[in-house]
Amino acid sequence: MNFASDNWAGATEAVMAAVQRHNGGFAPGYGNDPLTKSIGQRFSEIFEREVEVFFVGTGTAANAISMAAAGRPGGLVFATTEAHIQNDEFGATEFYTGGMKIIPVGNAAGIMDPAALTATIARFGGRFGIPTVLSLTNATECGTVYTPAQVAELTAIGKANSLTMHMDGARFGNAVAALGASPAEITWKAGIDILSFGGTKNGCMMAEAIIVFDPGKFPNLPALRQRAGHTASKARFIAAQFEGYFEDGGWLKTAAHANAMSARLAKGLGNRLAWASQANEVFPILPKTTIAKLRAAGATFHEWPADGLAADEDCVRLVTSFATTEAEVDRFLSLLWDPEPRGSTGSP
Amino acid sequence: MNFASDNWAGATEAVMAAVQRHNGGFAPGYGNDPLTKSIGQRFSEIFEREVEVFFVGTGTAANAISMAAAGRPGGLVFATTEAHIQNDEFGATEFYTGGMKIIPVGNAAGIMDPAALTATIARFGGRFGIPTVLSLTNATECGTVYTPAQVAELTAIGKANSLTMHMDGARFGNAVAALGASPAEITWKAGIDILSFGGTKNGCMMAEAIIVFDPGKFPNLPALRQRAGHTASKARFIAAQFEGYFEDGGWLKTAAHANAMSARLAKGLGNRLAWASQANEVFPILPKTTIAKLRAAGATFHEWPADGLAADEDCVRLVTSFATTEAEVDRFLSLLWDPEPRGSTGSP
Amino acid sequence: MNFASDNWAGATEAVMAAVQRHNGGFAPGYGNDPLTKSIGQRFSEIFEREVEVFFVGTGTAANAISMAAAGRPGGLVFATTEAHIQNDEFGATEFYTGGMKIIPVGNAAGIMDPAALTATIARFGGRFGIPTVLSLTNATECGTVYTPAQVAELTAIGKANSLTMHMDGARFGNAVAALGASPAEITWKAGIDILSFGGTKNGCMMAEAIIVFDPGKFPNLPALRQRAGHTASKARFIAAQFEGYFEDGGWLKTAAHANAMSARLAKGLGNRLAWASQANEVFPILPKTTIAKLRAAGATFHEWPADGLAADEDCVRLVTSFATTEAEVDRFLSLLWDPEPRGSTGSP
Amino acid sequence: MNFASDNWAGATEAVMAAVQRHNGGFAPGYGNDPLTKSIGQRFSEIFEREVEVFFVGTGTAANAISMAAAGRPGGLVFATTEAHIQNDEFGATEFYTGGMKIIPVGNAAGIMDPAALTATIARFGGRFGIPTVLSLTNATECGTVYTPAQVAELTAIGKANSLTMHMDGARFGNAVAALGASPAEITWKAGIDILSFGGTKNGCMMAEAIIVFDPGKFPNLPALRQRAGHTASKARFIAAQFEGYFEDGGWLKTAAHANAMSARLAKGLGNRLAWASQANEVFPILPKTTIAKLRAAGATFHEWPADGLAADEDCVRLVTSFATTEAEVDRFLSLLWDPEPRGSTGSP
Repeated sequence: MNFASDNWAGATEAVMAAVQRHNGGFAPGYGNDPLTKSIGQRFSEIFEREVEVFFVGTGTAANAISMAAAGRPGGLVFATTEAHIQNDEFGATEFYTGGMKIIPVGNAAGIMDPAALTATIARFGGRFGIPTVLSLTNATECGTVYTPAQVAELTAIGKANSLTMHMDGARFGNAVAALGASPAEITWKAGIDILSFGGTKNGCMMAEAIIVFDPGKFPNLPALRQRAGHTASKARFIAAQFEGYFEDGGWLKTAAHANAMSARLAKGLGNRLAWASQANEVFPILPKTTIAKLRAAGATFHEWPADGLAADEDCVRLVTSFATTEAEVDRFLSLLWDPEPRGSTGSP
Repeated sequence: MNFASDNWAGATEAVMAAVQRHNGGFAPGYGNDPLTKSIGQRFSEIFEREVEVFFVGTGTAANAISMAAAGRPGGLVFATTEAHIQNDEFGATEFYTGGMKIIPVGNAAGIMDPAALTATIARFGGRFGIPTVLSLTNATECGTVYTPAQVAELTAIGKANSLTMHMDGARFGNAVAALGASPAEITWKAGIDILSFGGTKNGCMMAEAIIVFDPGKFPNLPALRQRAGHTASKARFIAAQFEGYFEDGGWLKTAAHANAMSARLAKGLGNRLAWASQANEVFPILPKTTIAKLRAAGATFHEWPADGLAADEDCVRLVTSFATTEAEVDRFLSLLWDPEPRGSTGSP
Repeated sequence: MNFASDNWAGATEAVMAAVQRHNGGFAPGYGNDPLTKSIGQRFSEIFEREVEVFFVGTGTAANAISMAAAGRPGGLVFATTEAHIQNDEFGATEFYTGGMKIIPVGNAAGIMDPAALTATIARFGGRFGIPTVLSLTNATECGTVYTPAQVAELTAIGKANSLTMHMDGARFGNAVAALGASPAEITWKAGIDILSFGGTKNGCMMAEAIIVFDPGKFPNLPALRQRAGHTASKARFIAAQFEGYFEDGGWLKTAAHANAMSARLAKGLGNRLAWASQANEVFPILPKTTIAKLRAAGATFHEWPADGLAADEDCVRLVTSFATTEAEVDRFLSLLWDPEPRGSTGSP
Repeated sequence: MNFASDNWAGATEAVMAAVQRHNGGFAPGYGNDPLTKSIGQRFSEIFEREVEVFFVGTGTAANAISMAAAGRPGGLVFATTEAHIQNDEFGATEFYTGGMKIIPVGNAAGIMDPAALTATIARFGGRFGIPTVLSLTNATECGTVYTPAQVAELTAIGKANSLTMHMDGARFGNAVAALGASPAEITWKAGIDILSFGGTKNGCMMAEAIIVFDPGKFPNLPALRQRAGHTASKARFIAAQFEGYFEDGGWLKTAAHANAMSARLAKGLGNRLAWASQANEVFPILPKTTIAKLRAAGATFHEWPADGLAADEDCVRLVTSFATTEAEVDRFLSLLWDPEPRGSTGSP
């Protein structure tokens, strides 16, 4: 019953097989190999336009290098209070950009509020620094997803303020699978300039890519990556992971499975969720006694900050992945509802 | 005939098998998995003392994070004019350390000259900045190796100047295999504090480790790695590479093979070498016509800066790896000496 | 009627005279002159213990270098939402520290709330980064002052969390004058480790000092200052300003005058203040028509963000200095209350 | 007999008078005052074109912010081995630029060798980083001056390599006075894009300016300055210094005087100079006994690295300023040649 994170899973068979398949022989280093180039083409097909692709090994690297590429001294990044770049990266954006500030913007369940964005830009622009980047996470850190229309509404505000639009797509596959929209529709067609495209959480070992929708728009990007030690010498092994990832549309199948497992959890959990579950995360609010019982039974997950909690309850985050099974979900749910020991007043 | 770089090779079978072997099931992220811990123990055994181990994905990351861990504002790093940190990392050391300078020190064939180190510290210390780190590369960028005694002589000077001693071991396996000394003897027993331990060039896909010989000596290291986006979420896949790498002492066998292939090249090439070949690199000086002929026949390699070249010759770098075959070496050598086409006045 | 900022004033006569007085002759550069040393002693007397003193030219430099001296990679700084380091320095703290984050803490009228500090450290420590610095501004950005007891209550929480305690004293003189406490009592005796001691706003031309209460505690400080270009070559001219500043306790007299002018304004303005005025700033909430009328009459000031404003009113910040006159204050107040033109429904 | 540095002198009377003159009344902060604007105009007149002017307090700040304005990630700066940015600023350029490297270029007496520049760009461009900035110091750190033709020859090479051309003019007045060329001729007319214009060494207290010859070319400059804490709040006091500095062409008179004092020293010292003296510095090579004798008599100066010294001699740097007197020079020279005490075998 592993719901701690989608990065606790391993890699899919297709990813592993591709890595094996491309192991033989010699290949030029630092991304000059034919496989890296061909996967670059594959990204262009997926996004329905020619894109630039820069592989890196972690999501934090993808985000921070993107921020530096789009940044400037004294610049401000607007992101939700829930954003991974703000909460979970130990100041990577600030470090890579030479000190840009991340300004939190109000949101509902991780979806940025357009009015709050407008107000926040107005309030902080100029004095705090120069409004520079809008960063949206899709799927969000709250397990919700932005529709193309929601993205477009926010990027329109960004454009009116001369911002560069970034999307943190650590769970991009989950967003695409959940929306039924095309990758193009929720990115560049909705105003996104640069995307952190995540592979790791959805079935790769260590494979992330920075996607630039207008090739050449960020001329410092190769140097930013190299200066940070994020240019892999044997880049073919990242390329191979993506080959396996995209094979037969597998990346959307694994994402859809993960989403379905969260939906199954959400359905079983009922109404007491901090936020609606739309992708591969569920945030139930549970009695502390129940949490203890689940842990005792071997379930893994993290507590999560949430508002409106009673003293005897906590919010927890449950994350599902391609490797989550129905049996695992059902066992978890059964623990919630099993009235044993009889007479208990604890769990719901 | 691939001699461009040891990073043009893939991964060894043992590494690949280990990655496959550890793919199943769930494992905590960010290095909290049991495999990562057990490989940490393995490093302690190899170095004959308890060490701290921090995995990263590239050699530049290992070096730059080590420099930042050992660094301070206004600090100076002493390294040879040939050092990778100076010549090939696009300013990573400067970036990660907030601006420390790398001061070049005279050397012979990549081996730092102790007198030059003493003189350079004396000349630049104080005015330029604060002497802080000594960085030695073993095996060197010139294909030579430091003996334990040579390392110890330099670190004694470093200690007398309160420096922290770093070793860039991107080709550490090649050095150990060439010397017949133990890993301990050429590192901490010879005064080294922190080591960039390379796995990638010698048979891994993407696996490097920062080794701290006095655990806890560099308390900022975990944060430096995380802030830079170099903490892999699925760290087990780096750990697994090292498991395969160390299996049955395989890492020293692959290194020994690579060294033997260079020795075979060096023997065939004769005396016209820029520097003696002691590990897995050979730097012959060749007529430009020969270079062209080798390229035309499909050999890959890079030109390399060297002194004392005639107008019609160049120095080239030949790098061998675990994947280099005797046949490949012999074919390369045969091209050098084969007088075909008859009547040619070009190659020797 | 100049209330825009205390940095719109010039320098006091005593400061100017001292600068003139020390102009003749030669003096060693970079702070090695006798005057700089003697002013260092003067600071030790003022703070009733031996302190280290580092001159810089701006308050932002004093703050950012202090943060870097006390900082570490991945560190967090706790400061109020009103803090100058967060709102007005274009990311200087983030830049100088290599990316430390400033975490806003709830406050009332600029005075940090101890419970909020405890809760904020608990919520953000660990995941966001490593709790590292507590920064309090005294006098605050809201024109209020911390008592020694209030400082001590907050630094006790900081100490329990292993934080370094910084005070932004851009208006330190105003705080001391307002409190009637000694400089020692509101700094190191209340738990402060490092202080940005401001001279500029209270009658110097360009003179700030970083005060370290435990000499040697921040060994990187000299290098941090030099690397940033903040080590003045003709440091005697900063020292001279401080000599004039401290002469006959003048710095507390100018501060007391500035405070008195704000009190006179506050009294005249009545109850409609965003926050009580305790030092040399007043934040009245005024009808927009009144604001326009004051501007038309030549008054200078800035609008300021405040909560709870009606649609037809704004908050403005009025700052007084040693150069503010009673006549100026009274003329400003007279404009508020003068019912001309008769029949106006605008101003109160 | 003070020859330690031109920053050991105070300020000229004209500078002091201007500071006094502009002390009264209120003036907007951060450079928005009328005096700052009018001095900006004055710079435009001096350079015979509209220029942008950014005041800072130190030469290191002027250089480092210029480098950051002209820089890019992974960039390289080409400067002589003698350059102040390399030797005397504790890594400020590296810090401000996020890690750009300074690549030393061969020179004769501080004057960069064009052939060496071409060769150095060719050798280090691409692999080390991206050639980005050419930085020339005028007057040089060796007391020599570049003619407009020499500057133009070097900037032509720079332009051919897409470099931005910077001049470190910490002793710009001395160069102009020595050359008899106009400020325009040795800067933008000779290909310079950005200039660190020094006032401090030549009679100001603390006044440097970054001059941009093509206004708007470096859009990040204001933010770079603010983020670094180098935007003075009471900027009028820097502006006032420059008003006094430029009054009646005084800056060129003080520079000419300083140059004349060095010429007088050089003439008296005879032929044994490390380099010809062309501005306000002289670098004699003297017997160590003479050096000791001079020191004993109260002369101040620094030893300086130089080649070709005998075991019993050292090179020293003598710097003259507006405050140096003929009497001081003559006394110094008399000590050199006075055979007292008779019978001494020491001084020449």
